[in-house]
Amino acid sequence: MTRKIINDPVHGFITIDDPFILEVIGHRYFQRLRRIHQMAFAQLIYPGAVHTRLHHALGAYHLMCNAINELRLKGIAINEEEAQAAKLAILLHDVGHGPYSHALEKVIIKDVHHEKISLLIMESLNKTFQGRLQLAIDIFTNRYHKPFLHQLLSSQLDCDRMDYLTRDSFFTGVSEGVIGYDRILKMLTVKDGQLMVEEKGIYSIEKFLVSRRLMYWQVYLHKTVLCAERMLVRTLQRAKHLVEQGHLLPTATPTLQYFLEGKSNIGAKAEDLDAFCNLDDFDILTSIKMWLHYDDKVLQTLCDGLINRNLFKVKFLQEAPSADEMKQLKEKISSTTGVSSPDVDYLAFSGEVKNTTYNADEERIQILFKDGTVKDIAAVDNALIRQELSTPVKKYYLCHYKNSN
Amino acid sequence: MTRKIINDPVHGFITIDDPFILEVIGHRYFQRLRRIHQMAFAQLIYPGAVHTRLHHALGAYHLMCNAINELRLKGIAINEEEAQAAKLAILLHDVGHGPYSHALEKVIIKDVHHEKISLLIMESLNKTFQGRLQLAIDIFTNRYHKPFLHQLLSSQLDCDRMDYLTRDSFFTGVSEGVIGYDRILKMLTVKDGQLMVEEKGIYSIEKFLVSRRLMYWQVYLHKTVLCAERMLVRTLQRAKHLVEQGHLLPTATPTLQYFLEGKSNIGAKAEDLDAFCNLDDFDILTSIKMWLHYDDKVLQTLCDGLINRNLFKVKFLQEAPSADEMKQLKEKISSTTGVSSPDVDYLAFSGEVKNTTYNADEERIQILFKDGTVKDIAAVDNALIRQELSTPVKKYYLCHYKNSN
Amino acid sequence: MTRKIINDPVHGFITIDDPFILEVIGHRYFQRLRRIHQMAFAQLIYPGAVHTRLHHALGAYHLMCNAINELRLKGIAINEEEAQAAKLAILLHDVGHGPYSHALEKVIIKDVHHEKISLLIMESLNKTFQGRLQLAIDIFTNRYHKPFLHQLLSSQLDCDRMDYLTRDSFFTGVSEGVIGYDRILKMLTVKDGQLMVEEKGIYSIEKFLVSRRLMYWQVYLHKTVLCAERMLVRTLQRAKHLVEQGHLLPTATPTLQYFLEGKSNIGAKAEDLDAFCNLDDFDILTSIKMWLHYDDKVLQTLCDGLINRNLFKVKFLQEAPSADEMKQLKEKISSTTGVSSPDVDYLAFSGEVKNTTYNADEERIQILFKDGTVKDIAAVDNALIRQELSTPVKKYYLCHYKNSN
Amino acid sequence: MTRKIINDPVHGFITIDDPFILEVIGHRYFQRLRRIHQMAFAQLIYPGAVHTRLHHALGAYHLMCNAINELRLKGIAINEEEAQAAKLAILLHDVGHGPYSHALEKVIIKDVHHEKISLLIMESLNKTFQGRLQLAIDIFTNRYHKPFLHQLLSSQLDCDRMDYLTRDSFFTGVSEGVIGYDRILKMLTVKDGQLMVEEKGIYSIEKFLVSRRLMYWQVYLHKTVLCAERMLVRTLQRAKHLVEQGHLLPTATPTLQYFLEGKSNIGAKAEDLDAFCNLDDFDILTSIKMWLHYDDKVLQTLCDGLINRNLFKVKFLQEAPSADEMKQLKEKISSTTGVSSPDVDYLAFSGEVKNTTYNADEERIQILFKDGTVKDIAAVDNALIRQELSTPVKKYYLCHYKNSN
Repeated sequence: MTRKIINDPVHGFITIDDPFILEVIGHRYFQRLRRIHQMAFAQLIYPGAVHTRLHHALGAYHLMCNAINELRLKGIAINEEEAQAAKLAILLHDVGHGPYSHALEKVIIKDVHHEKISLLIMESLNKTFQGRLQLAIDIFTNRYHKPFLHQLLSSQLDCDRMDYLTRDSFFTGVSEGVIGYDRILKMLTVKDGQLMVEEKGIYSIEKFLVSRRLMYWQVYLHKTVLCAERMLVRTLQRAKHLVEQGHLLPTATPTLQYFLEGKSNIGAKAEDLDAFCNLDDFDILTSIKMWLHYDDKVLQTLCDGLINRNLFKVKFLQEAPSADEMKQLKEKISSTTGVSSPDVDYLAFSGEVKNTTYNADEERIQILFKDGTVKDIAAVDNALIRQELSTPVKKYYLCHYKNSN
Repeated sequence: MTRKIINDPVHGFITIDDPFILEVIGHRYFQRLRRIHQMAFAQLIYPGAVHTRLHHALGAYHLMCNAINELRLKGIAINEEEAQAAKLAILLHDVGHGPYSHALEKVIIKDVHHEKISLLIMESLNKTFQGRLQLAIDIFTNRYHKPFLHQLLSSQLDCDRMDYLTRDSFFTGVSEGVIGYDRILKMLTVKDGQLMVEEKGIYSIEKFLVSRRLMYWQVYLHKTVLCAERMLVRTLQRAKHLVEQGHLLPTATPTLQYFLEGKSNIGAKAEDLDAFCNLDDFDILTSIKMWLHYDDKVLQTLCDGLINRNLFKVKFLQEAPSADEMKQLKEKISSTTGVSSPDVDYLAFSGEVKNTTYNADEERIQILFKDGTVKDIAAVDNALIRQELSTPVKKYYLCHYKNSN
Repeated sequence: MTRKIINDPVHGFITIDDPFILEVIGHRYFQRLRRIHQMAFAQLIYPGAVHTRLHHALGAYHLMCNAINELRLKGIAINEEEAQAAKLAILLHDVGHGPYSHALEKVIIKDVHHEKISLLIMESLNKTFQGRLQLAIDIFTNRYHKPFLHQLLSSQLDCDRMDYLTRDSFFTGVSEGVIGYDRILKMLTVKDGQLMVEEKGIYSIEKFLVSRRLMYWQVYLHKTVLCAERMLVRTLQRAKHLVEQGHLLPTATPTLQYFLEGKSNIGAKAEDLDAFCNLDDFDILTSIKMWLHYDDKVLQTLCDGLINRNLFKVKFLQEAPSADEMKQLKEKISSTTGVSSPDVDYLAFSGEVKNTTYNADEERIQILFKDGTVKDIAAVDNALIRQELSTPVKKYYLCHYKNSN
Repeated sequence: MTRKIINDPVHGFITIDDPFILEVIGHRYFQRLRRIHQMAFAQLIYPGAVHTRLHHALGAYHLMCNAINELRLKGIAINEEEAQAAKLAILLHDVGHGPYSHALEKVIIKDVHHEKISLLIMESLNKTFQGRLQLAIDIFTNRYHKPFLHQLLSSQLDCDRMDYLTRDSFFTGVSEGVIGYDRILKMLTVKDGQLMVEEKGIYSIEKFLVSRRLMYWQVYLHKTVLCAERMLVRTLQRAKHLVEQGHLLPTATPTLQYFLEGKSNIGAKAEDLDAFCNLDDFDILTSIKMWLHYDDKVLQTLCDGLINRNLFKVKFLQEAPSADEMKQLKEKISSTTGVSSPDVDYLAFSGEVKNTTYNADEERIQILFKDGTVKDIAAVDNALIRQELSTPVKKYYLCHYKNSN
């Protein structure tokens, strides 16, 4: 028996007893996730938030195992092959994340979403493993005839979210975000192939959605977290710009150099996909440390912000700042820093963020009542979560270099 | 009022309300600790163990604040200046740690211990801040006339250990290592200037020492953790060797290049100390990723082990392996890998590790009895911790490349 | 120094260092709270829910200490006398609870609310302690000129609620009810003498209200918890009825006997107040054990339900059951048990329960914005908690003897 | 499917899915354990320690379920019937505990140990349930041919201890006593029918034994906990003495009256066993409340101590107090209280307590090494737990009425 038990501060012990799953976990494409932080630069604000995507993937896998057990106890038919495939799919659901994940998605790889890359990598692995990942891919892409298996890994109430919300709460220390995932798992059920929640789970679902809302505004969209993320994007954009302008900007690794030069084509070239799998947070951060000393005031300022935690000033606004306001602010910054237009745009910028408490348009949370009827949570009498909560809350941010005065 | 509250999953909230302490925390020498993992490559075994030295320093600072409060409540005189200095000293006690800390200490910087570097950095900061760190330095070097302040930051029962044992337990998920530091803090007292523990704290101290023992054998000296650490050392040694042999080995950063060339002299040259403060785990790991593709079989093998988690085989032995055994093993590895002697020494090696449950020779744990007498914990009747436990337990390890057969 | 440290699994350590507060805690009127369960018979459903009112009172005291510290750090003037009084008031706020608290309030003592009895006891103690509780009484009755002190012990966001929600979550094991009281405390502030919450605390408040909502429907108003509580009330009503009818019903204690006979007048007679303070859960439950053997089918059935956990059948309904339905049900029960009308009313009954997520009519939760404006949480843009949530949710329950068929 | 899920703050969720086990749990003999506190009067010192024997029994049952699962995963054959029997045996292992358990064992029932009563009750239930408990009884009495099943419920490392140590730590708030039972369970194995621990579990076992040692000295044998327990014994002894002297001492219930009169014979009379099963903490404490007002100075003093928390003064001594010392102390107390010899012996008494860290004479903890050898933990090289730790530590206590001066 090859049983591997991994200590996880969040879930206690994670047990893996399927040799093929262990083999996939051991593959370098999966191991790469060790070097990608789950929460990018949020650790500048929450010093504990240094956990990795690999850790999250293992945690989500653990929840998937538990969910499958619970459903089987309720008589839902899930055979061994389906169970293995669902577990593989959740393990690999994030395998396409690039360095610093969401933040840099659009800078390093243009026009290819990380889910698409995950799929490309899964297909590549499927070749390596002679088709043994086919069912996992079918579930991942929702082409399998039991939609609840897909919903367990991608819906408003999936193992992915349950793990990352709990894990991010745990590592940030924002204990209010912790959700009772074990109770939610016990209340999952399946009807007509669809994943649903038993009636008595309504309050737990409400709590789940409110915890998520809290995590968004308190952590993911925390103004300083946002500021660090935007500065990271600006840094890479500037570096790319300089490279495009012909600067001999030193980067820590040839791989990052290649992607900065913008010549890659992940979808079309297998070697580019493989190159992408060599990229991680370390290429980026090490390069930023080097750029700190490169003779470009804009790049230096941004890199200093990220490396030495000299973050820009940031505030939320009810409305987008006016063109006039921005103009005055930028002029002031130009006069202090000597960085003139249009480069000053890197040092002062605004944008909007939004979050929806419950998105009734996407995958819904369906409640199965004792009498057999099914309702969307937003349609349940007396529920806290109403239709109107599907309107996103929008905020504007303004982020700029701190003038010393 | 400038009060900064930091979320810490271990201690809840860490409050910093002294502007000067905030200034020191903001300094880039301190911020660098964000990029040094507390537990090096232990995350290959315990995926949660990715916390940083900065986080530990903040945690130890928090415990120091609590300890000072408790002692003051017991009537021990500690003035504001002393309190600030003790807090600064604990914050900076680890500031001299290099990348991957203990493991690489002797490879990157020869002959200078990290505590010595911490002192050098504190002296440099003391200049920057016009002497405001002098008292902290005096406490750190135990030249201040209240020895208990030094003992709070460096003794068998200091805030440093209390934090790292609890923090490492927490992040590894080895919950048995968690200690009741809050109870221990409440039982600290001072007599004749020396830090001691009240009589009723004996069982908590026993528990503390046993937890530490457990953390050593289960985590810090876990055979696979040890293996990863030794492989890291070997990797850097190999890289250094190649550089010394004239190879044009690419490294991710010029700073690491400089240190690998062995020309630095931290003690004597201020610019070398500053260069050292630019080095962190990112320079190392990013270079290892590059070396994975460098045309040296030894280096490739080691780097592949660390990056793709293809760790060597490792076991503990009661006695050191015989010369013969080693010879045979190496020959076998040579025939598989094509790496001949003496290079094969990088791929098969042994060594010893030891740990002492309670070291009665170093700073002792003194118990203050109700009748005013003072005894070393190892001399207390019926205590679990006896003199004999100060004999170190020694184990031998054998670590080598896995033959596929 | 007399400092007492009490271990509390919920808050860690509770420290009491005021000799007068220790004296009040030592008084038998306070110690009586050890023998009153915080959650009555909820332990029939949640076996861990056996914690006492004394434990809750100490926990609320602890939060009050923390709240006062936080407010003082923000510059809110609270002198030593006021702090002591607020702490005493929170310690004693529940001292008037009778056995099994809310459930039996109206059966044992007619027409006197437990808060009124708390006040009577505080006044009695005030005499005993020569007026040293006067300021505490003024705060308790909201006659003191700093209303925030009263609000700390009685408002929608008081230390009472924060403790009992957290404590009840903890002991029931319904971990989703746990609230981040420490964060909420850090966000309290005072403006114009009124307690408010800083703007950035909005999401924590939402989480607090949703957790409370969850605790209500999942625990306090859990149908079986409710059933046990209603059976307890019915039991005492039946016993009282039998006593009034002249039965020589044995009770465990003369004190309970006296109250069952309905001759007491707590408001008017000091000795009756003192007698009340001899009553606790033990008088009741021990009597129920005796009544189990008394020759009255109704009483036996009810007592058996509570002692041997043979609870009635209970369900929630959208509408109150019709007169007809009730009639049929009772006839069926009569034919099974031989208990005829009107006594059968003890074995089948219905009623309604309701709960409001946020009651905007009572003490409100006021948010203080950075720009100095103050808004009720229900009036904040984008807040989850809306005006409409102040409409109570109402459910009907039907509770009856289980027919064996 | 009848699956019952019980919330347990210690273990999360306890699942019971065997209808027969549910039936046994529902029996009034088992339900009685709800009214027996696990830790008697320890709540006077640790206010959270109000958990019940029923809760502990459910927790131990849960650990038994997990242990059986783990062993089965390791290929140890345990059939369904054996599994059910082991679960029933652990559920009922404490069912014979009388009110306030250990303390009163010898006062209320002379010469019958609680384990013997547990067996009598199990045999009675076995009749009720037509022999379905026979295998459970065989395992309980260690007559079954797979000794490890008995060892899982009664050995130095059984589910009973693992649950009560963790549970008592949890409810007292003495978090240092918490043990990593989940890790220990994962390291259990069976060889030659005997329960053992895998080699790598050594440090966890050490930690377990040290935690137990800590719980003994810090909680179970805490001097004030001990004092309360001894006062309880003295109280019942005094009451019994008065009854024997012909006093018409009122007791709360006829059942307790019967046992105080000393006429019961549990072993011989079935109705006495049933009467015993009507006794619980409520009979005792309610009677103590009544005795507080009975005209006997000794009884009043003792009852006041327990009810109003006016505990005697207590201290630990290295040696038993001398006859002279005791004589002087008693004379002083006589002069203050008017209670003369020999009654004053109730108000001043001494005794001894002892505890053994590891008792090598009783059931041993066997370690199974990788090479197949088996050693007692006390014989393992370098283990903390040595032979000498099986010598009990002995302390003397002196407990007496507090003179007001």
